[in-house]
Amino acid sequence: MPDFQDLYAQLFEKLGEITDIRHALALLQWDQEVYMPPKGAYARGQQLATLAGLEHRFFTDTEMRLLIDALRDRTEDLSPEQAALVRETAHDLDRAVRIPESLVRLFAEAQSRAYEEWVEARRGSDFQRFQPHLKTMVDLSREKAEYLGYEESPYDALLDEYERGMTASQLRPIFDVLAARQSALVARIAESPHHPEVTWLDQDWNEAAQIRFCEEVLRDMGYDFSAGRQDKSVHPFTTTFDVQDVRITTRVNPRDFLSALSSSVHEGGHALYEQGLPVAFRRTPLADAPSLGIHESQSRLWENIIGRSHPFFRRYLPRLQQLFPRQLDQVTSADLYRAANRVAPSLIRVDADECTYNLHVILRFEIETALIEGSIRPEHVPELWNSKMRVYLGVDVPDDAHGCLQDIHWAHGSFGYFPTYALGNLYSAQLMEQAKKDIPDLMNNVDGNAFPELLAWLRDRIHCYGRMKNAGEIIEAATGSRPSPEPFLRYLEEKYAVLYPA
Amino acid sequence: MPDFQDLYAQLFEKLGEITDIRHALALLQWDQEVYMPPKGAYARGQQLATLAGLEHRFFTDTEMRLLIDALRDRTEDLSPEQAALVRETAHDLDRAVRIPESLVRLFAEAQSRAYEEWVEARRGSDFQRFQPHLKTMVDLSREKAEYLGYEESPYDALLDEYERGMTASQLRPIFDVLAARQSALVARIAESPHHPEVTWLDQDWNEAAQIRFCEEVLRDMGYDFSAGRQDKSVHPFTTTFDVQDVRITTRVNPRDFLSALSSSVHEGGHALYEQGLPVAFRRTPLADAPSLGIHESQSRLWENIIGRSHPFFRRYLPRLQQLFPRQLDQVTSADLYRAANRVAPSLIRVDADECTYNLHVILRFEIETALIEGSIRPEHVPELWNSKMRVYLGVDVPDDAHGCLQDIHWAHGSFGYFPTYALGNLYSAQLMEQAKKDIPDLMNNVDGNAFPELLAWLRDRIHCYGRMKNAGEIIEAATGSRPSPEPFLRYLEEKYAVLYPA
Repeated sequence: MPDFQDLYAQLFEKLGEITDIRHALALLQWDQEVYMPPKGAYARGQQLATLAGLEHRFFTDTEMRLLIDALRDRTEDLSPEQAALVRETAHDLDRAVRIPESLVRLFAEAQSRAYEEWVEARRGSDFQRFQPHLKTMVDLSREKAEYLGYEESPYDALLDEYERGMTASQLRPIFDVLAARQSALVARIAESPHHPEVTWLDQDWNEAAQIRFCEEVLRDMGYDFSAGRQDKSVHPFTTTFDVQDVRITTRVNPRDFLSALSSSVHEGGHALYEQGLPVAFRRTPLADAPSLGIHESQSRLWENIIGRSHPFFRRYLPRLQQLFPRQLDQVTSADLYRAANRVAPSLIRVDADECTYNLHVILRFEIETALIEGSIRPEHVPELWNSKMRVYLGVDVPDDAHGCLQDIHWAHGSFGYFPTYALGNLYSAQLMEQAKKDIPDLMNNVDGNAFPELLAWLRDRIHCYGRMKNAGEIIEAATGSRPSPEPFLRYLEEKYAVLYPA
Repeated sequence: MPDFQDLYAQLFEKLGEITDIRHALALLQWDQEVYMPPKGAYARGQQLATLAGLEHRFFTDTEMRLLIDALRDRTEDLSPEQAALVRETAHDLDRAVRIPESLVRLFAEAQSRAYEEWVEARRGSDFQRFQPHLKTMVDLSREKAEYLGYEESPYDALLDEYERGMTASQLRPIFDVLAARQSALVARIAESPHHPEVTWLDQDWNEAAQIRFCEEVLRDMGYDFSAGRQDKSVHPFTTTFDVQDVRITTRVNPRDFLSALSSSVHEGGHALYEQGLPVAFRRTPLADAPSLGIHESQSRLWENIIGRSHPFFRRYLPRLQQLFPRQLDQVTSADLYRAANRVAPSLIRVDADECTYNLHVILRFEIETALIEGSIRPEHVPELWNSKMRVYLGVDVPDDAHGCLQDIHWAHGSFGYFPTYALGNLYSAQLMEQAKKDIPDLMNNVDGNAFPELLAWLRDRIHCYGRMKNAGEIIEAATGSRPSPEPFLRYLEEKYAVLYPA
């Protein structure tokens, strides 16, 4: 009879090595975005391909399959953490082995070409150029979905990679409610006579002072700079090389200091999650979020619900006035609060405000489900995009660069990724509603102990589990309710009724 | 009959993947020295160990052995570059497979412990603490030498890793000449009445201005910043992720701007070599120097023969006076030249001047050969060190932190590394003597075209070969003479006779 603890030790050791390779890959990518000189790109592509290939080979090799086959049905001999590690690894492995090596390679090659063409197509606002590559990515994704298997829609097989257990048919009614109520809210705001005056924002904001301020806020939030760092990149992101090496990047707009602030606080929210994962889960797949939606809930909670609150700007106005005395001489915390929450339907998702953001997501969800389910073809995308932009946001799309070519996701073949942004918004409001109940006077106390108390609450309810619980279990255990869009809509409608009175 | 071009293509592909892993390892190390937050150290150690293990496993696996066995005796079917790649890979593989996996692992573990203990021992100047670890590293290195094989001395087997084909018995007569003539030179200098006045150097030198100046000099030298970058680290180094991604680091002393300058120019010399390797050798072991001595010749040539010349300071004085107007108001190029070349026997190798540097190396060579050959034991090292410091440099060692504990090399088990520093000095002078003949008026033209012309000469004579030629062949082809200490001694004696007249 095999010794299960011995087999488990082998699995643990092997997963440690695989995790090391994944973290080396993450470092290669971080450096590419942050410090790599331009001519380093060619070799970096090769290094990434080699390590990604190695990672896949090791993760799906015979040894791994035998270990998981021996352990998966004997989890009663293991501790709860050990059982969770076996369960999660088995899940990942089942997905990985279903897709043939040949498709993995085809997908990676097509992805690389589609990305190159997308960059050029976006530059020239030339959808025709991207269209055949979009078709390839859709076709390969549909093929992938067939290998992965699904019950209702092939889209579900893809969505499952980012938000386990979620399906298109679960999302549709949620998104219908969001679309209706957020569109109505945006229409009410458009008619409000109380739009903020923000010309004062368009001044010179010293870059070093912006960075210093962001670092101070991150420290206040509880981000541990001895286990991380902040650098600059074109597209802000968070990356993890270990629970004690979690790095973020930000961008700096010299004419709008709110840009770096919101991106630092957003990435800081992701990073607090990663730094809060148990050290005992280090070098295993358990040291991760159970879904992208849950991860995004942490960034959105800090970025929007905390970082765009009036108490937040009351707390930081004095410090901001020290750093920018001339620019903020006549500016009040209410001015900052209103500027950070100005609502204006716009073309670009990543610049969208809280009221319109989900509408951008829903439009993409509707188009990508139709593509994957085969009810539309790639050539229909621009027209569909533009008409949905008029319906949901009331804006006219001037060209595809500001329309259906703006996001990288489809060029990467990441169908099913977009919904997790909206789910993150919903989870963030539901969690925060509960946190406000559990921590008395939380929002009135932002000056004082609110950040440490909130972080402790998040650590206790979310971060400490890693992948031990799934997304639904985490939300339900933390809030006493199943995931629901109502807390988010309540939050939004109350906040903006005050900001934009009729 | 096998198709040799097909086998060669397999070898080339496999070496590409192995090189990718090596470059990922280099990035993990670079980041560790330059940007990693302190708490990242634990996981980084694991990542380095995993990737190093993978690299060794792939490089010595059955597939590699079969490919090399099939190709090594059929190089007449291959092009000269292909034949060189097979020859060099066979050489590396022969060394790698001779050492059993178990010794590789033992060595890595002992190295890691010895390094930790060395750090503490040096901090507390406590040789006793380091002694058992030094003994382990010596014992394991002697065992390694037995596996590798040698004719005269076990030391030769270790030295061969850094300077192929070199032996202790070849080095001894060279080092005897250097020791005698350099000691005599140092003694003459000590008696000279013309020691420079350098109190002006001890001022505040703005760090950003120092870095900017170093970058300008590097650009003038021909370092391509679109294929590299400069960052700060405690110990300056050069690292390569590709021929088009070659990075250097420097250190900044706020009270001595010559420190950053010499370290940037030194590392710049290494980096010009790496950036000058043929793009066609990318992702193969040919994209490397044939020996550390040859590599060091490039850094020493730029650092000392160019970067510590009077024409160099004549060229840069106006720019330095722009950057540091107050500090350099009364300073002449001759003052800079004399300050950069002041000679003073001192305790620390890395701070040593041109006249004493080799003496530090020779002392270490004598001690480490004796350790490896078994004629002394680790407990004898401090006494031997201190007495040799008195003989060669006339200085008294106050404690082991400033004596035999100062260098990391023995803690790393890198016996045989030190001589390559001295060989680099010799090669640099021999090459420069020839370059001055080939490029008319080179040193009088430092203001104008000298750097590009010198770089073109080095590219043509050295950089373009990678490992196609060995160290001796390169020196002989470039200079028409076999490697010799005479050009270096001529350079030194002439330069310092003028700087320190009797």
